[in-house]
Amino acid sequence: MSNKWLVGVDIGGTTIKIAFVSETGELIKKWEIPTNTSDNGVFITKEIADSIDTEVKQLQETKDKLLAIGLGAPGFIEMETGFIYEAVNIGWKNYHLKEDLETITQLPVMIDNDANVAALGEMWKGAGDGAKDLLCVTLGTGVGGGVISNGQIIHGENGMGGEIGHITSIVEGGAPCNCGRTGCIETIASATGIMRIAQEGLLHHPESRLQAIAIREGVLTAKDVFEAALIGDVYAEQIVEKVTFHLGLVIAGIANTINPKVIVIGGGVSKAGEQLLKPLRTHFNRFTLKRVSEAADFRIATLGNDAGVIGAAWLAKEYARAL
Amino acid sequence: MSNKWLVGVDIGGTTIKIAFVSETGELIKKWEIPTNTSDNGVFITKEIADSIDTEVKQLQETKDKLLAIGLGAPGFIEMETGFIYEAVNIGWKNYHLKEDLETITQLPVMIDNDANVAALGEMWKGAGDGAKDLLCVTLGTGVGGGVISNGQIIHGENGMGGEIGHITSIVEGGAPCNCGRTGCIETIASATGIMRIAQEGLLHHPESRLQAIAIREGVLTAKDVFEAALIGDVYAEQIVEKVTFHLGLVIAGIANTINPKVIVIGGGVSKAGEQLLKPLRTHFNRFTLKRVSEAADFRIATLGNDAGVIGAAWLAKEYARAL
Repeated sequence: MSNKWLVGVDIGGTTIKIAFVSETGELIKKWEIPTNTSDNGVFITKEIADSIDTEVKQLQETKDKLLAIGLGAPGFIEMETGFIYEAVNIGWKNYHLKEDLETITQLPVMIDNDANVAALGEMWKGAGDGAKDLLCVTLGTGVGGGVISNGQIIHGENGMGGEIGHITSIVEGGAPCNCGRTGCIETIASATGIMRIAQEGLLHHPESRLQAIAIREGVLTAKDVFEAALIGDVYAEQIVEKVTFHLGLVIAGIANTINPKVIVIGGGVSKAGEQLLKPLRTHFNRFTLKRVSEAADFRIATLGNDAGVIGAAWLAKEYARAL
Repeated sequence: MSNKWLVGVDIGGTTIKIAFVSETGELIKKWEIPTNTSDNGVFITKEIADSIDTEVKQLQETKDKLLAIGLGAPGFIEMETGFIYEAVNIGWKNYHLKEDLETITQLPVMIDNDANVAALGEMWKGAGDGAKDLLCVTLGTGVGGGVISNGQIIHGENGMGGEIGHITSIVEGGAPCNCGRTGCIETIASATGIMRIAQEGLLHHPESRLQAIAIREGVLTAKDVFEAALIGDVYAEQIVEKVTFHLGLVIAGIANTINPKVIVIGGGVSKAGEQLLKPLRTHFNRFTLKRVSEAADFRIATLGNDAGVIGAAWLAKEYARAL
């Protein structure tokens, strides 16, 4: 092991998180720049490179200190070539991100999907704790997934590995999903899905405190639901039960396939913590083989917003090692 | 590449298939010996070794010709150590198979679960056609699975990877499964499951030719169902529809997770060929993301009973290469 730094980059729709990370995964310095989506994101790559240069100088180091760059980006990515088919939030389409960033920085660059990179971060330094077989489920606006098996991200044939948010959980009569189909687990267990379920039944539950909140705030959040359930609101409890039932069923199907050691739950909804995990485990256990549920440990993600840059740094490390 | 032979061994409850295979996967010689289950299978390992010796001599070669032994066995196996936790049909329990066979034969031995080994065989020389991301589904007495991702079998944390027969497909009111739960896909899409479904509804379908067959033969088989459906028997068509609906749903969930290039369907039920694949594709497509279904090609297994020995030979090759 050298004494060099890895660069982790996590590109989001509004900000780009960048960090220098040691080869053992310690954060040395992290910072953010805004995502410049003007002209379909044509300035972004150069701005990342410039920002890295500036920070290296500020820390009184030279570029020789940097080993490689790992980068997580949203959208459909071909990992081998670092080619972005499409990243809607950024504006990129058919863009050779890896090639461009390598040319500008003169460093090796390795790219993966943001959900995968977050899973790698949790595997390396977060709740995954080094587990070689790990499922990472992100419950945010949507439901994202990263699947690690034999220590490697599962990308699949065309980069769709881990698209677990679109596993069907309600076969008939499910809610419409952004993907164009219905009943995907994303329509149920995302923050958006939980809000929708809460809103839909609200008129039939005048006894629930959620009705007063909805009137007062104009909108219900997943957080409102979990808070109400925590103090015994029956309607809110029913929603939590429904959400964890379907999520447990879907995760059980994945676990019967990949037999993970650790299942990391992240994203905004995961802030509910044990209130979410307890019923989730119960439903999960019902739908898995005993040896599978015995092996699988549910944990809340621990890295929060740092998962992306740390996972990206891991990518950089593995890539540099293979060169 | 040397000019040596690989030995593939496929242990079943009644016979043990053994083959010499070239390093490019061509069968040089294959034969069978009965599985000697007396005294909890204590003689089996020695009998395999002796049989290999005898065949080598018969082919006028010496043992130097053999590179390594790969072996597929039923039951729960720890792949790293080649330790069999339990193989009910054989009688083994807590048995160091790899260690024993290596001591007797003085050859390197690599062991894996029989369903996984069959998947490797189809990947190498069968319907998988070298695909690095492959799902192999065996529809026989039960429903077995082998999942290959990044060219590697997914074993998972305690060897339960690919136990897809026990993914729940009917959440409430499903039939009892051998695993102690209900509604597993094995209760629906195995030969046994198809028979059960056919029998259950038989009294309500006097118009179906399946009733006459059941009376004449005393029992219905999955083959009867597919044959009747082929000539337009409405009840039989409904059964095929139900079976492929649930199988399509379960395989879609797996495909949204691992994004396979090839989905190989094997086992006795797969003899129905396109009659099975056509409705299966339709249901599968309904429950997957478009990019996932576009990438996935359904194929009937082509190696039949040879899949095990050829996959075991592949294991031997990879293992010998890594030594």
